[in-house]
Amino acid sequence: MNKVYNFSAGPAILPREAMEAGSRACLEFQGMGLSLLEISHRSTEYQQVVTDACAIVKELLGVPDGYTVMFLQGGASLQFAMAPMNILGDTETAAYVDTGVWAAKAIKEARLFGNVEVLASSKDANYNFIPKDYTVPAAARYLHLTSNNTIYGTQLQSFPSVAVPLVCDMSSDIFSRPVDVSKFGLIYAGAQKNMGIAGTTLVIIREDWLGLGKRKLPSMLDYKLHADAGSMYNTPPAFAVYMALETLKWVKAEGGVAAMQKRNEEKAAALYAEIDANPLFKGTSALEDRSRMNITFVMEKPELEKEFLKEAETAGLSGLKGHRSVGGFRASIYNAMGLDGVQALVTLMRDFATRHAA
Amino acid sequence: MNKVYNFSAGPAILPREAMEAGSRACLEFQGMGLSLLEISHRSTEYQQVVTDACAIVKELLGVPDGYTVMFLQGGASLQFAMAPMNILGDTETAAYVDTGVWAAKAIKEARLFGNVEVLASSKDANYNFIPKDYTVPAAARYLHLTSNNTIYGTQLQSFPSVAVPLVCDMSSDIFSRPVDVSKFGLIYAGAQKNMGIAGTTLVIIREDWLGLGKRKLPSMLDYKLHADAGSMYNTPPAFAVYMALETLKWVKAEGGVAAMQKRNEEKAAALYAEIDANPLFKGTSALEDRSRMNITFVMEKPELEKEFLKEAETAGLSGLKGHRSVGGFRASIYNAMGLDGVQALVTLMRDFATRHAA
Repeated sequence: MNKVYNFSAGPAILPREAMEAGSRACLEFQGMGLSLLEISHRSTEYQQVVTDACAIVKELLGVPDGYTVMFLQGGASLQFAMAPMNILGDTETAAYVDTGVWAAKAIKEARLFGNVEVLASSKDANYNFIPKDYTVPAAARYLHLTSNNTIYGTQLQSFPSVAVPLVCDMSSDIFSRPVDVSKFGLIYAGAQKNMGIAGTTLVIIREDWLGLGKRKLPSMLDYKLHADAGSMYNTPPAFAVYMALETLKWVKAEGGVAAMQKRNEEKAAALYAEIDANPLFKGTSALEDRSRMNITFVMEKPELEKEFLKEAETAGLSGLKGHRSVGGFRASIYNAMGLDGVQALVTLMRDFATRHAA
Repeated sequence: MNKVYNFSAGPAILPREAMEAGSRACLEFQGMGLSLLEISHRSTEYQQVVTDACAIVKELLGVPDGYTVMFLQGGASLQFAMAPMNILGDTETAAYVDTGVWAAKAIKEARLFGNVEVLASSKDANYNFIPKDYTVPAAARYLHLTSNNTIYGTQLQSFPSVAVPLVCDMSSDIFSRPVDVSKFGLIYAGAQKNMGIAGTTLVIIREDWLGLGKRKLPSMLDYKLHADAGSMYNTPPAFAVYMALETLKWVKAEGGVAAMQKRNEEKAAALYAEIDANPLFKGTSALEDRSRMNITFVMEKPELEKEFLKEAETAGLSGLKGHRSVGGFRASIYNAMGLDGVQALVTLMRDFATRHAA
């Protein structure tokens, strides 16, 4: 079988090394004569997985002292509620920027727990840019941002310097570049885009944001209980945490997040260059907000889109169909996508344009 | 390497066939040229996994019409809160029976959402029996039970016939025997004991219990949203659901839950017979409540327990150490444990007793 390049938005491409480690661990783990899937989460061997996974997150992102790293369940969708539930008091105000449907869902959940001020929204432009012209109220408990908007192909090129701590959903670009964690009160990310498989959620939180006592919380929704238990308040999603560890070990071996950033910029530049030069294609997001993770584009002649997609599938370029709300194409080029995959796509785009020259 | 028999309480032994299917799927799934770990949850191939997993649950348990089957995240621990949050009104009363620390945790979470009446508790006897002498208030919204108490080795031999619907945590014995689902308003079970790996939770709920509107719920905690979305409200824990499917396919191939019950009774009978006959060992739970999943026992001469455990490990009998609150030993003999594993343990117990005869 020919190699398939996986451009899926998430669950998404993983390093081959991580998938092979996962495959082996399903049969036998650490010479125990047992599979990773069937061992106690309290075993020495599994405790080490969680310890190592938290440690490599801290190392790769340079997480400063005073922060706790946890692996939870429920995806970013549960964090949309857990964050305000733990941090925002009934009468306090949180500031949000609406940059896509995921940001809008975060806003909806936060409204259950306190006052929410939406500082800016690009909804009227189908979220094709990231609003940056807003003032954060000094009394805001936090400013919530979505660092990368998977559906629309927009990404914050840098994080604003504001007087309040940031809360950020980094589900689709975490570990794609260095981040100054000290700006954030809370960072969360579903693992299944750039750091592993579906089923676990990374949470990085300021320790002084644990146990704020804003309201009575169900135990599973209390950051402090999870932190105190070292991500083991109840049985963790053991295999998903292991896959995050193996994925991050690969990131480290490849040079860490600075090396990822260099590669991601190179891949994105190659693809955007083709989109801009090729007469058949055009990008959908504002130039200054273009994502380096999810590259969205459409055709000048929409009637040809189906044919291009079919040719792409035949050529082993999988998962390129755009989200229905944007249409066209979306190439998700997360860390594990090599430049060769991008080049294969660029080659097809050129070839297709030549064959369909007016 | 010699075969290792895995007596862990959970995560626990799985059918070899399921672990091998998982290992293969990590590398390549359904001829897609892609790993199951990296494909979209919206792909036809993965949608089929979820559809099949829900269907085989319905088939194996004979789930009647009017019930919805879902795979969620968060374990039974999150269900402790989700159940009352969705079903119990602020001024309504739910009845609970306290049969162990997990039941006690369910009680604690329910108290956040309504009135909780604890009808009976065996806490004073270190939960070594299941109280059955209680009256359920006619006005109770539901009666909450824990079908099997992993730590203490007790199990409900049958479910009481009461005038209110049952809510039951079946985490550690689901699919070990037939169950009359129509008695239940809600059944939930963390997958990692008898039906798969850690990271997904099975929920079976009466459809008229969806969307009761008792309170404003965060989306991820609303059974109705998950039901309407077919367990796909957000990205599901894809690999964990696949492993549940593969485990349940094995249960079906082996003859279904009636066949499992027969085998589990046979295995438990063999082990309890040895515990009762062997002068060195004694059971810890009340005879009439003895679990067929987790068999707890201690030694007449506690000073020999360490030595026995060491010999067991050497003989490839893993995970036999009892929970600290009971001490001694716990042999978890879930569906996937064969009679050969139990016989290996019985043989060691006999041999050990002979060598240590007074």
